[in-house]
Amino acid sequence: MIRRKLPVAVLGATGAVGQTFVRLLAAHPWFELQELAASERSAGRRYGDAAHWIDGDPPRGIAERCVVPCTPEHVQSPVVFSALDSSVAGEVELAFARAGRFVLSNARNHRMEPDVPLLIPEVNPEHLALLDRQRRERGWEGAIVTNGNCAVIVIAMALAPLHQRFGVRQVFVTTMQAVSGAGYPGVPSLDILGNVIPFIAGEEEKIAPETCKFLGRVTDGVLHPAQIAVSAQVTRVPVQHGHTVSLAVALERRASQRDVFAAFAEWRGAPQARELPSAPERPLILHDAVDRPQPRRDADAGGGMSVTVGAVRADSILDVRLVATGHNTVRGAAGASVLNAELLVAQGVIPAT
Amino acid sequence: MIRRKLPVAVLGATGAVGQTFVRLLAAHPWFELQELAASERSAGRRYGDAAHWIDGDPPRGIAERCVVPCTPEHVQSPVVFSALDSSVAGEVELAFARAGRFVLSNARNHRMEPDVPLLIPEVNPEHLALLDRQRRERGWEGAIVTNGNCAVIVIAMALAPLHQRFGVRQVFVTTMQAVSGAGYPGVPSLDILGNVIPFIAGEEEKIAPETCKFLGRVTDGVLHPAQIAVSAQVTRVPVQHGHTVSLAVALERRASQRDVFAAFAEWRGAPQARELPSAPERPLILHDAVDRPQPRRDADAGGGMSVTVGAVRADSILDVRLVATGHNTVRGAAGASVLNAELLVAQGVIPAT
Amino acid sequence: MIRRKLPVAVLGATGAVGQTFVRLLAAHPWFELQELAASERSAGRRYGDAAHWIDGDPPRGIAERCVVPCTPEHVQSPVVFSALDSSVAGEVELAFARAGRFVLSNARNHRMEPDVPLLIPEVNPEHLALLDRQRRERGWEGAIVTNGNCAVIVIAMALAPLHQRFGVRQVFVTTMQAVSGAGYPGVPSLDILGNVIPFIAGEEEKIAPETCKFLGRVTDGVLHPAQIAVSAQVTRVPVQHGHTVSLAVALERRASQRDVFAAFAEWRGAPQARELPSAPERPLILHDAVDRPQPRRDADAGGGMSVTVGAVRADSILDVRLVATGHNTVRGAAGASVLNAELLVAQGVIPAT
Amino acid sequence: MIRRKLPVAVLGATGAVGQTFVRLLAAHPWFELQELAASERSAGRRYGDAAHWIDGDPPRGIAERCVVPCTPEHVQSPVVFSALDSSVAGEVELAFARAGRFVLSNARNHRMEPDVPLLIPEVNPEHLALLDRQRRERGWEGAIVTNGNCAVIVIAMALAPLHQRFGVRQVFVTTMQAVSGAGYPGVPSLDILGNVIPFIAGEEEKIAPETCKFLGRVTDGVLHPAQIAVSAQVTRVPVQHGHTVSLAVALERRASQRDVFAAFAEWRGAPQARELPSAPERPLILHDAVDRPQPRRDADAGGGMSVTVGAVRADSILDVRLVATGHNTVRGAAGASVLNAELLVAQGVIPAT
Repeated sequence: MIRRKLPVAVLGATGAVGQTFVRLLAAHPWFELQELAASERSAGRRYGDAAHWIDGDPPRGIAERCVVPCTPEHVQSPVVFSALDSSVAGEVELAFARAGRFVLSNARNHRMEPDVPLLIPEVNPEHLALLDRQRRERGWEGAIVTNGNCAVIVIAMALAPLHQRFGVRQVFVTTMQAVSGAGYPGVPSLDILGNVIPFIAGEEEKIAPETCKFLGRVTDGVLHPAQIAVSAQVTRVPVQHGHTVSLAVALERRASQRDVFAAFAEWRGAPQARELPSAPERPLILHDAVDRPQPRRDADAGGGMSVTVGAVRADSILDVRLVATGHNTVRGAAGASVLNAELLVAQGVIPAT
Repeated sequence: MIRRKLPVAVLGATGAVGQTFVRLLAAHPWFELQELAASERSAGRRYGDAAHWIDGDPPRGIAERCVVPCTPEHVQSPVVFSALDSSVAGEVELAFARAGRFVLSNARNHRMEPDVPLLIPEVNPEHLALLDRQRRERGWEGAIVTNGNCAVIVIAMALAPLHQRFGVRQVFVTTMQAVSGAGYPGVPSLDILGNVIPFIAGEEEKIAPETCKFLGRVTDGVLHPAQIAVSAQVTRVPVQHGHTVSLAVALERRASQRDVFAAFAEWRGAPQARELPSAPERPLILHDAVDRPQPRRDADAGGGMSVTVGAVRADSILDVRLVATGHNTVRGAAGASVLNAELLVAQGVIPAT
Repeated sequence: MIRRKLPVAVLGATGAVGQTFVRLLAAHPWFELQELAASERSAGRRYGDAAHWIDGDPPRGIAERCVVPCTPEHVQSPVVFSALDSSVAGEVELAFARAGRFVLSNARNHRMEPDVPLLIPEVNPEHLALLDRQRRERGWEGAIVTNGNCAVIVIAMALAPLHQRFGVRQVFVTTMQAVSGAGYPGVPSLDILGNVIPFIAGEEEKIAPETCKFLGRVTDGVLHPAQIAVSAQVTRVPVQHGHTVSLAVALERRASQRDVFAAFAEWRGAPQARELPSAPERPLILHDAVDRPQPRRDADAGGGMSVTVGAVRADSILDVRLVATGHNTVRGAAGASVLNAELLVAQGVIPAT
Repeated sequence: MIRRKLPVAVLGATGAVGQTFVRLLAAHPWFELQELAASERSAGRRYGDAAHWIDGDPPRGIAERCVVPCTPEHVQSPVVFSALDSSVAGEVELAFARAGRFVLSNARNHRMEPDVPLLIPEVNPEHLALLDRQRRERGWEGAIVTNGNCAVIVIAMALAPLHQRFGVRQVFVTTMQAVSGAGYPGVPSLDILGNVIPFIAGEEEKIAPETCKFLGRVTDGVLHPAQIAVSAQVTRVPVQHGHTVSLAVALERRASQRDVFAAFAEWRGAPQARELPSAPERPLILHDAVDRPQPRRDADAGGGMSVTVGAVRADSILDVRLVATGHNTVRGAAGASVLNAELLVAQGVIPAT
């Protein structure tokens, strides 16, 4: 499909999510990582000095690159991945979209805007229809497409097969989130070693609206969020990578245990159908061991792009209980936007070169 | 109240909960720790050699004691605390009760029997009325009184003020449990370092029935469990001590935020009224910091006997959401039975010497 | 000895070491914690808001206090404990000494000055003789007395009995240091969870000179550092509290295994002789279990004021190998300075009121 | 070199090291994993049920295999990798060698026998000359070749370049070892969470003799161990994978900082020259960041087959100080034996099919 690799850039390349973008893009079959952009503080520095690399070492040749500022003037690539902090992402991403670029964003700033797709390619590819309206109303050639909050992506993927087959009505969720979700330096070790913290600033507020947007429908260019009541408690746990969610789910229609298992086991989506490079063979892995999923053993499944579901059973009050784990900086952040970009290319929204 | 200290023994003194009993009883104002009993394998050995002490070192003078077998012949004390494994606790505890002893048990074996009190002195002291029936029907002079599962005690204490004032109808709970709850050697480090495990053998099954028994009523010597629907997911987290539970609660009667706060803040019980030695000043501590309770910071509150409640707010689906943390081997196990024994002494069930 | 409690203040009261000072002084029999002082940023705020409390909650009544600025005008106490960051401690401590105050400092700024005692009361109480010279030459009525680096205190206490009896000639040391040694927020969890970091900025450089000063002699008001060659590698490990050091030691004079054991077991000092309030019964605890000392089990020994020594044996190259563990924020920091102050009071250097 | 894959078996396939063998061999270009053998308890069971898999899930198709007993009758492969426990490895490995098989062993039983190569292909490939004597004197067609203790392999690889160029005379070492070195269930989480344990049963005794054997010479079929004095303290730390060692080294001949750096940077061996499949491009990686090596960031370097060296500097007493980290179950165990087997094939000792 791709003759020549498409030049791409990472905005906010030095942070924890930025590093994951860099790692995923450094060896990407369709994209050529052309620019590493970051804040004024880092611009002009050697990437290896500006970024405190979290896992192992940067891919070969990357550390020596020079960081450029986050402006459309300094970044020429037609496709930019944004790992910017929300304090600056809003304006910077607008500037890039106005300059005609495709912005694949991990930042929360534009996620809930009615003309901005909040996209998981397996869950709601049809939401890309919002881009027409976005371009028309905003008057730009570019586009902003966002991935969701790292915990919500795990929740939405675990709910999607149930919602598509039986309708989800209510969800009670308790999250157990990894420290890499807080970026670097992030969570002080004195807070989290041997501890659980039942609070993550700004996190709980995102869970209901983003879940409902992901699982909503787009009709005639208008988004109709799913009508799902969500009750959420978030917690931070001493885990490196991998968010785990405990879910109790009420369905619209009755479903047998067998129906539910089948819904999870058979679930595939556009990335699998189109064999996108970052698409895992199975977006959901239904694990049958009683003690799974576990973040340390399952977060890397499918290259970090699969969500593992387990402990699936009838709930004693509602319909289904289950636990799901996904890699928060891959499927929950950088990998999510890379897959979004791949879908855009595959659908011709981003023109292949 | 106590002129001479009452001789007491610990059955299963070498394990993790047994050690906590030993630590709490070694300096107890009412009880004199007379015998350390354990399995055949340990009997006859020096306690310091037989027990792999988990926190620091055994209290002074304890390590040198000789472990005796768990039989009424070898253990003379009228009061015995049982930290026995459930594989043996059932029979051994019966033998002691038949021999006229007061058995304060942490084991699960007899907890759900209709004539055995499952006791938290602040929650259901009136359940001691079951002892008349127990002695009459079983034909023994002794008694068996049990504390509950370590996670259920935290749940039941957090629910008790709500149930007493407003009636609890439904509870969704996800637990995050410390490794000390599994005893020693317990959870392998290869399983839990940097991980979450959504399974604890035999644990989830206890949560609904024990919660309903704790919060039930005794009328004319008959126990009527509370009619509360409970949906539970348990998990193990890399925390040393302190079980944390995330709760969403439906009430029978409407309660304002203010009513709920007052219910928690004002809640006291028999141990506080009688100023029992192990009674914390406040059985529930309502913490107002947004990021509390936390096991590492809060498990030791009230000498490990207080449960800390936080993140209390209106639930988006039911009535109340909250998080509670308690020390699983103190309030959730050994300290629970010690407090139970104190109540029995204070009420004259166990005769003071 | 003390009729009325002596008013004291903590400078830098909001940080990790400052909190330990506050905890130790809140219930001190000789000292009355009168002022909580901190940087401009915190001054005027409620202490409970300004300090992110690391272990449990602040002592009763402390959270409500108002933080004052770190100047002799705002702090009236004659005795001040400094937990200030080294970026500001130098000047602030001079200002207090010039204003006639007794400054007990945990900061590194003045430690190596020739007229400033670097004091461990059990090791080198005679170094207080430097105070005459300090006051004469600096022309102030006050005094500055410092404790050492948290790792060096553990090393110096473990070496002191050997040095006093046999002379220490060479030491090879590898440290394994707790995260609380880095203060708050300190070490990011992403760096240290499941990891070892063989670097602590500025730490290795302190080990040789401070060790030699602690173990040196004062003759006619002049300090003569011990002539000990020290080779050090520091590391950070995922431990909450408690620094552990692995030592290989060359002695001046031959010592049998028995001599070495006796040296550790019998070692006592001025704080024990004078029964100072913070003095542990045994400043060194010689543990005979093969797998001790361990930070989690031993750091709190003696209320955090004892250093535990174990794995003592003949070295295959030099004379002695051993491992020592001590609580880095108690004996290694705040508790060290509190004990220093107690010695000053007991010796009449600080006049009792 | 290899036309048809060589059938191989893993003895002790269910344990922690056995699992690593399985993972490395499942996709090996030269070897075909034909049999999974384990103790009587596991024989006949499905591998996925018999093995509690530690990292992620078993390679595809492996879980369904049936475990066979560890006897030459049940295991047909000409090459067997032994991950057996030392309680049984001695006899079982002899039986296989007598049956004409090539035994590549991770067990300690035969390591120190004078006619058994203790092999690191980059360090002492010439030790394979011992095999002639072994076969002649033992009268078998098979062979036993061992890898070393997991910590010693890291030490020996870090010392090899220094020893080859400058002669190593003395080494002081403190190890910080990962929990996976203890196998499964291994270290209880209650012992190691937030802790350091300065003891590993039987470990320290291996460090001096194995290091000296690795770095020794074979002349006329006789092994002459290196004359290196080793002083060692081992510790266990809460790290999943990756042993770290802190070394102070005395050399025979003076070496400048530059010479030492060059020795590490330029060091290659037989596996690199012969481009063996498991050979990392660089067996030693000299890292120049001040805070490296670290187990979590560096253990996986070179697919777990590279040892990373850092913090290299002149020692204040001896000649060189440094820190080295290597993956204990890959380069320190299973990967070591796989590389040994590859060398045997490349040298024609094991006939290619």
